[in-house]
Amino acid sequence: MKGWFGRSLRYKTPLEKIMPSGRAMILAYDQGFEHGPRDFKENPRSADPLEIIRIAKEGGFTGLVVHRGIAEKYKQEILKSEVPLILKLNGKSELYTGDDPYAPQLYAVEDVISLGATAVGYTVYTGSKYENEMNQEFARIVVEAHRAGLVAIGWMYPRGKSLRKKMLNDEDPTVVAYGARIGLELGADIVKVKYTGNVESFRWVVKCAHPTKVVMSGGPRTKTEEQFLAQVKEVMKAGAAGIAVGRNVWQREDPLEFSKKIREIIFK
Amino acid sequence: MKGWFGRSLRYKTPLEKIMPSGRAMILAYDQGFEHGPRDFKENPRSADPLEIIRIAKEGGFTGLVVHRGIAEKYKQEILKSEVPLILKLNGKSELYTGDDPYAPQLYAVEDVISLGATAVGYTVYTGSKYENEMNQEFARIVVEAHRAGLVAIGWMYPRGKSLRKKMLNDEDPTVVAYGARIGLELGADIVKVKYTGNVESFRWVVKCAHPTKVVMSGGPRTKTEEQFLAQVKEVMKAGAAGIAVGRNVWQREDPLEFSKKIREIIFK
Amino acid sequence: MKGWFGRSLRYKTPLEKIMPSGRAMILAYDQGFEHGPRDFKENPRSADPLEIIRIAKEGGFTGLVVHRGIAEKYKQEILKSEVPLILKLNGKSELYTGDDPYAPQLYAVEDVISLGATAVGYTVYTGSKYENEMNQEFARIVVEAHRAGLVAIGWMYPRGKSLRKKMLNDEDPTVVAYGARIGLELGADIVKVKYTGNVESFRWVVKCAHPTKVVMSGGPRTKTEEQFLAQVKEVMKAGAAGIAVGRNVWQREDPLEFSKKIREIIFK
Amino acid sequence: MKGWFGRSLRYKTPLEKIMPSGRAMILAYDQGFEHGPRDFKENPRSADPLEIIRIAKEGGFTGLVVHRGIAEKYKQEILKSEVPLILKLNGKSELYTGDDPYAPQLYAVEDVISLGATAVGYTVYTGSKYENEMNQEFARIVVEAHRAGLVAIGWMYPRGKSLRKKMLNDEDPTVVAYGARIGLELGADIVKVKYTGNVESFRWVVKCAHPTKVVMSGGPRTKTEEQFLAQVKEVMKAGAAGIAVGRNVWQREDPLEFSKKIREIIFK
Amino acid sequence: MKGWFGRSLRYKTPLEKIMPSGRAMILAYDQGFEHGPRDFKENPRSADPLEIIRIAKEGGFTGLVVHRGIAEKYKQEILKSEVPLILKLNGKSELYTGDDPYAPQLYAVEDVISLGATAVGYTVYTGSKYENEMNQEFARIVVEAHRAGLVAIGWMYPRGKSLRKKMLNDEDPTVVAYGARIGLELGADIVKVKYTGNVESFRWVVKCAHPTKVVMSGGPRTKTEEQFLAQVKEVMKAGAAGIAVGRNVWQREDPLEFSKKIREIIFK
Repeated sequence: MKGWFGRSLRYKTPLEKIMPSGRAMILAYDQGFEHGPRDFKENPRSADPLEIIRIAKEGGFTGLVVHRGIAEKYKQEILKSEVPLILKLNGKSELYTGDDPYAPQLYAVEDVISLGATAVGYTVYTGSKYENEMNQEFARIVVEAHRAGLVAIGWMYPRGKSLRKKMLNDEDPTVVAYGARIGLELGADIVKVKYTGNVESFRWVVKCAHPTKVVMSGGPRTKTEEQFLAQVKEVMKAGAAGIAVGRNVWQREDPLEFSKKIREIIFK
Repeated sequence: MKGWFGRSLRYKTPLEKIMPSGRAMILAYDQGFEHGPRDFKENPRSADPLEIIRIAKEGGFTGLVVHRGIAEKYKQEILKSEVPLILKLNGKSELYTGDDPYAPQLYAVEDVISLGATAVGYTVYTGSKYENEMNQEFARIVVEAHRAGLVAIGWMYPRGKSLRKKMLNDEDPTVVAYGARIGLELGADIVKVKYTGNVESFRWVVKCAHPTKVVMSGGPRTKTEEQFLAQVKEVMKAGAAGIAVGRNVWQREDPLEFSKKIREIIFK
Repeated sequence: MKGWFGRSLRYKTPLEKIMPSGRAMILAYDQGFEHGPRDFKENPRSADPLEIIRIAKEGGFTGLVVHRGIAEKYKQEILKSEVPLILKLNGKSELYTGDDPYAPQLYAVEDVISLGATAVGYTVYTGSKYENEMNQEFARIVVEAHRAGLVAIGWMYPRGKSLRKKMLNDEDPTVVAYGARIGLELGADIVKVKYTGNVESFRWVVKCAHPTKVVMSGGPRTKTEEQFLAQVKEVMKAGAAGIAVGRNVWQREDPLEFSKKIREIIFK
Repeated sequence: MKGWFGRSLRYKTPLEKIMPSGRAMILAYDQGFEHGPRDFKENPRSADPLEIIRIAKEGGFTGLVVHRGIAEKYKQEILKSEVPLILKLNGKSELYTGDDPYAPQLYAVEDVISLGATAVGYTVYTGSKYENEMNQEFARIVVEAHRAGLVAIGWMYPRGKSLRKKMLNDEDPTVVAYGARIGLELGADIVKVKYTGNVESFRWVVKCAHPTKVVMSGGPRTKTEEQFLAQVKEVMKAGAAGIAVGRNVWQREDPLEFSKKIREIIFK
Repeated sequence: MKGWFGRSLRYKTPLEKIMPSGRAMILAYDQGFEHGPRDFKENPRSADPLEIIRIAKEGGFTGLVVHRGIAEKYKQEILKSEVPLILKLNGKSELYTGDDPYAPQLYAVEDVISLGATAVGYTVYTGSKYENEMNQEFARIVVEAHRAGLVAIGWMYPRGKSLRKKMLNDEDPTVVAYGARIGLELGADIVKVKYTGNVESFRWVVKCAHPTKVVMSGGPRTKTEEQFLAQVKEVMKAGAAGIAVGRNVWQREDPLEFSKKIREIIFK
């Protein structure tokens, strides 16, 4: 439906903004917190949030993930870019090596609304000793995000000592599917998960999370561009909604060109 | 009393909805959280919440137990099914193997009222190192549920290291009766407990919980249908109000047919 | 002072209700929580709260101690009995064997006002590793109880590893007097303590708690009725205000007859 | 300035009430909590709060330290005595022997205002494993006390395992001065500290706390009266504002006579 | 822009007050809390807050860091000095030697607004076992400080066991840059960090924190004045905004003269 002045009158829901035509291509930029500046060494311009906002905009991304500090300092630039803002609500540095992973919620949902967020994100390390704390925090975030009209995205990464004792690794289909399912049970709209390595097993992940949407986590930069693009093709074939990628884009020589290749797979 | 248009004017209390004619037959579907997708392998359609809502409706269940995420995503479908909604307020994954069981409260009672819940459920592992936390959470839930006009159901499962040291297992009559009694002391309207193995000892459980109602927990699928149906007959004979069952129904080849057999025992 | 219709116009304070003529005879019924159903085996009718309410009323008790669940389910019956209701606000099961005793507060003072409570009770295990938590909770309860016009009763039971290391047991006069004194310092109106074994030492306990009133804790059923009645006589001689008793009444063959014998000592 | 009826019109600040002419002589009576009734054995009348209120009044003390329970039960008597009331907000029993000292806040500042308190007191065991908790609680208390127009007094007692490891004891000048300084940094109006043993080192303590006032803690009863009086003289010479004393007064045969001797030193 | 009476009409933002012409020269005086009176031995006058306020004013500092107690007791003197007040919100003593560093938040942002604060400061020991608690507290402080119109300054000091295990020390460029970056991610306006030892590596620190401003932490007094001044020159060359210095100024014989030398480097 269009109004008399030719513009669509239809309001886009937050989920539609991040998933136009049902597909998502999200640029992740919380590595400065999680891994520190070492991730910027490959491409020193990537240390500058402005460069990333440019990539997000010109690369046609449907979402940009940052921490609150960056969102606040570049509020105007992000708004102007029109890339939907995804606020990562938890984080931890890699300097501390604890017994089991836990990244606590750092900001309240109400602290990010005024920054123009379209979505909030939170990592749940299912299987960690601190699983309970994370389930509680994410469950609460979902309630508050939906009340505020925001999309809730779960970084669902089962991990920790208990898994190692059970000889499970964090890319086992059973493990990835379990994490994705917890996302649904807690009410996530989108879950970000590791790739399981093949189409069939990833289809099971997608099925167990349904109707929650599944996006693949980009992970560290693959040796060749082709390796990464092949993964993207497979997850799309398995029924995923898209990907959330960081280093595989902004550590490359030409992030925009590579973004284009990804875009063509996801939105073809 | 009936109004002039022939419909009963009498308001049904929430407890009457879940226990029409004083009997309860509840379909449990929180296993995706507690055990993960492995429970769906037996019958892959069971991964889909819509399939479970269909079984609850067509199988004549008087309650459906789900987590908040599923209740939110399928709010309309559950409302249309007219099966009373029971919101499970706590949960944990089986990926983490802690020192002693504890599944923390994930949602507030007020977070589930608008989803149309008739009841809330919570698991108390009496005897666990975290017994105190659970008693506190459940006591609070009962107060808030009753204030909001909801039924409070306790999953009363004594468990943990202390019991093992005392050579007690979680189906000992003493143990089951103690759990059921804590349910009454904390104000539960219904307690869900393990079967003690024979009618006489289960009658003691029912007596110790009185006037709180007792339903048997279904547990893992029994080898034969008869084994399960025999248990249902015994608990009903012992004075229980019914059962809460999951895998024993939706892991079977024909869940509806088996539901009918259970229904005939409980409501005969 | 009496009004024209012959009824006393004077309002009875909550403390006067529980201590008419300055003496208290309280029936304790929180054992279903603390010890579980095993305490009911002796006299199976004692599992039924209605039977206990009957004993409280017909036995002439000046207070009945129960947990919130029972108070809520039998609100009408307790009100009709006219026995002042004492809500026990904390509790723990004996299934868990922790490092040191702690029974956390389970209900807020405001959660029990509408149930018609005249008093609230709380156990402090002074000397336990969790002493601080209990002192904080009880101090808070006293403030809130007095604000709401309720009597605050402290179950003052010094206990735990630290005492064992110091070769102290929980009936040593030093220990009992210390517990009673903490009750005064925290503002309790009545403290319930163990008997020290002789009149003189119990007099010191009463003195150290003054002006807080002291009642003796009944404990497990004594072998003979005489043993228990002798204790009651001694504590009254030592200046105590009365007793709080459970098993020594409702585990006996004829609870009412035995109640009468106690009553005659306390109110003679 | 005096009004026409001859009474001073000038309002006395709470600090002036406790420190008339800039000097303080405070009677401490929280030992029933900290040490238990054993402290009353020396002089059994000291178990009775009324006796202590009498000593405070007739001995000319400028402050009386009690816990909330006693302040509440003897509210009228304390008000009539006109001795400024100092509410001790934290405490612990000596029955529990933990790894490191911590006495948690038991009452909120707002819980003691209506009891007529002029000041609130709190113990900080700097150097203890629980130093952080105590710093947080005391910092908060100072904010709230000042907002309510009350004086904030810090019992500054560095103590614990860390000190023992560093071969420091709690009367070392370095240690006492550090504790006193933390009192200033957190905003205490008065700090109560151990005596360092000589005038010169105590002068450094007074200097490091300035402009916060310093009073010496009385400690256990000294063998002779002279020993204690000599200490009082020295701390006054070092620039202290006075003392806070308990056992050294009310464990003596004639508390009033001894109080007079102290008074003459402090207010001479 | 100037008004008719010749005074600038332009309002100075809090950041402009602390960083006039984009440069900061901050006087730190929280050592009485962190190290205790031993830091005052070098120059005993430094124990007196008034002396420090005088140095701040006459030395031309653009900020003075104190704890709340001192800010409250010298509110008038600090206001009159016109040196912007920076409230340090957390602190710990060096008497306690814990497993890993953590200085908890002691005052709420709202507790310091009425004292006339222009900025608030908080130390984050990234890599410590308590990193999560500190990230949460500082993130919250940033939100509240900005809401109240205050500058948020992070003392970013990666430290703790995890770093030692990784053979990292707290002046490694990687470590300092990581700390500075966390400051940006959490929304700090200014970060105070250790010097990395050379211009090039410090430039990387400044780049990774951008657009958050970087000031060098003064640290313990250097042997010669020249050593310290050389460091200041280098950090300014690396693009830093200035320094925050304490002992290197007020432990010197002539603090004002040395302040002048620093000022000339920073504001030249």
